[in-house]
Amino acid sequence: MTDTVHPLTLDRTDVEAARARIHDIVRRTPTLELHGAELGVTGRVVLKLELLQHTGSFKARGALNSVLQADASSGGVAAVSGGNHAAAVAWAAERAGIDADVFVPATATPEKLERIGGYGGRAHVVDGGVPDAFAAGLAWTAEHGVPLIHPFEQEGTISGQGTLGLELEEQVPDAHTVAVACGGGGLYSGVRTALGSHVRVVPVEPERCADLHAALAAGHPVPVEVGGVGADSLGPSEIGATAFDLARADVVDVPLVSDDDILAARRWLWQRCRVLAEPGGCVALAALMSGALTVEPGSTVVTVVSGGNNATLPR
Amino acid sequence: MTDTVHPLTLDRTDVEAARARIHDIVRRTPTLELHGAELGVTGRVVLKLELLQHTGSFKARGALNSVLQADASSGGVAAVSGGNHAAAVAWAAERAGIDADVFVPATATPEKLERIGGYGGRAHVVDGGVPDAFAAGLAWTAEHGVPLIHPFEQEGTISGQGTLGLELEEQVPDAHTVAVACGGGGLYSGVRTALGSHVRVVPVEPERCADLHAALAAGHPVPVEVGGVGADSLGPSEIGATAFDLARADVVDVPLVSDDDILAARRWLWQRCRVLAEPGGCVALAALMSGALTVEPGSTVVTVVSGGNNATLPR
Ligand SMILES: Cc1ncc(COP(=O)(O)O)c(C=O)c1O
Ligand SMILES: Cc1ncc(COP(=O)(O)O)c(C=O)c1O
Repeated sequence: MTDTVHPLTLDRTDVEAARARIHDIVRRTPTLELHGAELGVTGRVVLKLELLQHTGSFKARGALNSVLQADASSGGVAAVSGGNHAAAVAWAAERAGIDADVFVPATATPEKLERIGGYGGRAHVVDGGVPDAFAAGLAWTAEHGVPLIHPFEQEGTISGQGTLGLELEEQVPDAHTVAVACGGGGLYSGVRTALGSHVRVVPVEPERCADLHAALAAGHPVPVEVGGVGADSLGPSEIGATAFDLARADVVDVPLVSDDDILAARRWLWQRCRVLAEPGGCVALAALMSGALTVEPGSTVVTVVSGGNNATLPR
Repeated sequence: MTDTVHPLTLDRTDVEAARARIHDIVRRTPTLELHGAELGVTGRVVLKLELLQHTGSFKARGALNSVLQADASSGGVAAVSGGNHAAAVAWAAERAGIDADVFVPATATPEKLERIGGYGGRAHVVDGGVPDAFAAGLAWTAEHGVPLIHPFEQEGTISGQGTLGLELEEQVPDAHTVAVACGGGGLYSGVRTALGSHVRVVPVEPERCADLHAALAAGHPVPVEVGGVGADSLGPSEIGATAFDLARADVVDVPLVSDDDILAARRWLWQRCRVLAEPGGCVALAALMSGALTVEPGSTVVTVVSGGNNATLPR
């Protein structure tokens, strides 16, 4: 999917620089504290409501940071994604006064396509999945000489996502565990880089989009089949080298959740909190509710609700 | 609608006592800071996301406080409301292990009825509007000897709603203006009592549910016709004596918003923040967006998003 095979090297100062760059524009999204008992957990559970971010997902952070760093001399940028990163790049490009050509697979939800157009981006809908969109996006950038804003394996993108971790540090100083959904691994890498090893940062995957899990088993990133309810957000077929490297070094066990677990968490969020998240945005909470993510009794666990670009009401 | 004609006398210590009573159970709902420019305002705009409260509205606060203070010897309580207070009383009664018989007009949304049943309450759906539900509820309590938990004109209810004001004081210490939707006036009275005159607390009404506005014009509470998109939350036909008294003493000008203003604010909240509020919950924001609520340039204004029990997607 990508030619990058070496992990990027980033540290907390990169994330701090990203924060300085995007701080005035992105939203500091709120947290909601729940009684663990509501979820069958002893301890404090905190939701980080990142679906309230501009563009409806955390992707606004990394996209804006990368767009502000990109060489804009060609007058535009391109992006590839399941939809949320594409919408975020369209938004960031509009703010920067440049064009955005974004390549998304046909699985992108109507909400994601609407976002892209609403921010003035040009959506190129590609038959197939994220890998097919990647091929089309790479061909476009080669032909038009515009930079590709990578959805996860790019320093600017990862550092931007990491700003969510810096916020959490202030909002939930006693967090013991922070669980995030993992697709290509940009969110995980950024938050892990921001928080270092003081906090246990756990990447969670759907069983049917388990690219990090498969890579850890194989000893290196490998392409996997993706599908299921989370695929429109968590559908890259191969984990980024940076996330792989961090997870391997951490000896992380990746909790896996089923489609039913994800939909149960989504229903709970809507019925009990009036938070309407997209399936991929509910994956971290699903791991907690299903028991796939185990937490120390009495400790504080944060689950990031990472996106809200799916308006279908749960039933 | 009610026999009470004298305003209740409450002060901040009542609200503090309510907080001590309900603090462990209700949620501390989060705030979201926006750039005023997004809304055409100079200054800071903060949304208080009270739709994330248990039961989907702030009504959980007052209902729980009143239920915990009620004489439970009869084994149950009754309530009357457009739906949100009824759901909140059902929830509070379930927690207290007593029965709840709640009387709601036929205008109650499916989400509100679902909530009531979900918390084990018995919903009595009454033809007509809130006044008709009131008549039925009063008849029931007379017959069955159970206390009626009043939706606004009751000390426990008002003090409970006021706990939202105490939270805001901590969350937004520099708030200059706090705008809240006004139906019977319990939320306004509670927040006004909590915050005293340090903060400008503004009750906002839909043009078509303008019971406070009409009362201020008449010099005393008067029954008004109610209708429009906010009526299922803001539909009492006559303002409570307590809210009337406070608003008159404050020489408050009540901003009025049209149904279109309310729906525009609701659409904005969904499209730009992924917050799906009910129309009555968007009234305070609508006043800011429409210009009906004027704010000092550069000051901080809080609008309370008070409820989320309507799942119809805006278009
Ligand atoms: C809502 C949501 N959550 C989580 C992720 C995972 O992010 P990453 O690909 O950086 O692992 C994505 C990616 O698109 C997403 O859209
Ligand atoms: C969502 C919502 N907002 C505001 C109000 C107004 O509250 P009050 O009747 O205390 O003025 C209500 C009342 O039901 C409500 O349901």
